[in-house]
Amino acid sequence: MAFSPLIKQLIEALQCLPGIGPKSAQRMALHLLERDRKGAERIVASLATALSEVGHCRSCRTLTELDYCSICADPKREKSILCVVESPADMLAIEQAGGYRGHYFILQGHLSPIDGIGPEEIGVDDLLAQLQQRAVEEMILATNPTVEGEATAHFIAQQAIALGVKVTRIAHGVPVGGELEYVDGGTLLHAFAGRKQMGLGE
Amino acid sequence: MAFSPLIKQLIEALQCLPGIGPKSAQRMALHLLERDRKGAERIVASLATALSEVGHCRSCRTLTELDYCSICADPKREKSILCVVESPADMLAIEQAGGYRGHYFILQGHLSPIDGIGPEEIGVDDLLAQLQQRAVEEMILATNPTVEGEATAHFIAQQAIALGVKVTRIAHGVPVGGELEYVDGGTLLHAFAGRKQMGLGE
Repeated sequence: MAFSPLIKQLIEALQCLPGIGPKSAQRMALHLLERDRKGAERIVASLATALSEVGHCRSCRTLTELDYCSICADPKREKSILCVVESPADMLAIEQAGGYRGHYFILQGHLSPIDGIGPEEIGVDDLLAQLQQRAVEEMILATNPTVEGEATAHFIAQQAIALGVKVTRIAHGVPVGGELEYVDGGTLLHAFAGRKQMGLGE
Repeated sequence: MAFSPLIKQLIEALQCLPGIGPKSAQRMALHLLERDRKGAERIVASLATALSEVGHCRSCRTLTELDYCSICADPKREKSILCVVESPADMLAIEQAGGYRGHYFILQGHLSPIDGIGPEEIGVDDLLAQLQQRAVEEMILATNPTVEGEATAHFIAQQAIALGVKVTRIAHGVPVGGELEYVDGGTLLHAFAGRKQMGLGE
């Protein structure tokens, strides 16, 4: 069936959303126009405002419309520990897990020389400048456990160590609550290589 | 973690989309702001335009920015057959199945007296007016096979029959390609009640 041009355009635009294909986009477009115009207006207004107002935190570079995000502005957070992640979503996952009380630095993704994405594009120069300016006792590299994430972690580690900063990498191993049977070989190898001696009462 | 107010608002607004909960909305908001601002601008522009321009076809009441939709404006479609559905999405499903060459009438949902939705709210008066004005040989009721859809079909059928229109209801039975084992009892009863004698060569 031929949708009218404006509806077709809307369906195509909605496919910019992550995980949304033509079928879901069509369902969304019809739903918004037929049943929830108020909701559609809210999306237009809040998305337009966010696009014009939301930028990056001056310190950690996460998304925020403020100069400094709520974590960087929180005096109770430990300034001397810096956790480096690839995206605001990763920072969010760590925050939701609880337990971490330090600061963050959010890269704009990972190194990908094939796509022309080098250290400057993801903000490594800014990170290194911060390491030189503030007293960071430990930098925790929490980039993704992918080939690109590992390469990015390795690259940053070398630069930071040269500056005299203590650098750590989050542990790789079997996920908590999973079953060993379903864990992939690479993870198992990491889990064995990273094994720790147990003491009494553990 | 505390998102900044504008990002929070955006995440809440995106939950107006059908099938999108807090987690997916959060993922969408971060993706649009961090990785696809061009796409976000397209969504804002096309949704705003659609909201202001898209209304209903004057004849079948489907969504379109034109006075008459492409089906109503198509001289090759059979004007004397009218298929009544509950939403533009239902019309689309029938069009994608192919085979139907008549016109449509799109109700604004189904009768739901508890929610104060009576015949006028879903456009039954407009449908009956059309039946009196144009020569409809057959009206096919293709409302959903739900309690409300059946009640709506029954109500419309009574009014249309009183106007001397031939009214049919789409068949209820076992879905093509499914396995009998997994078909619910109500559908099986309908399938038995609606059984047809087979001839040679069928």
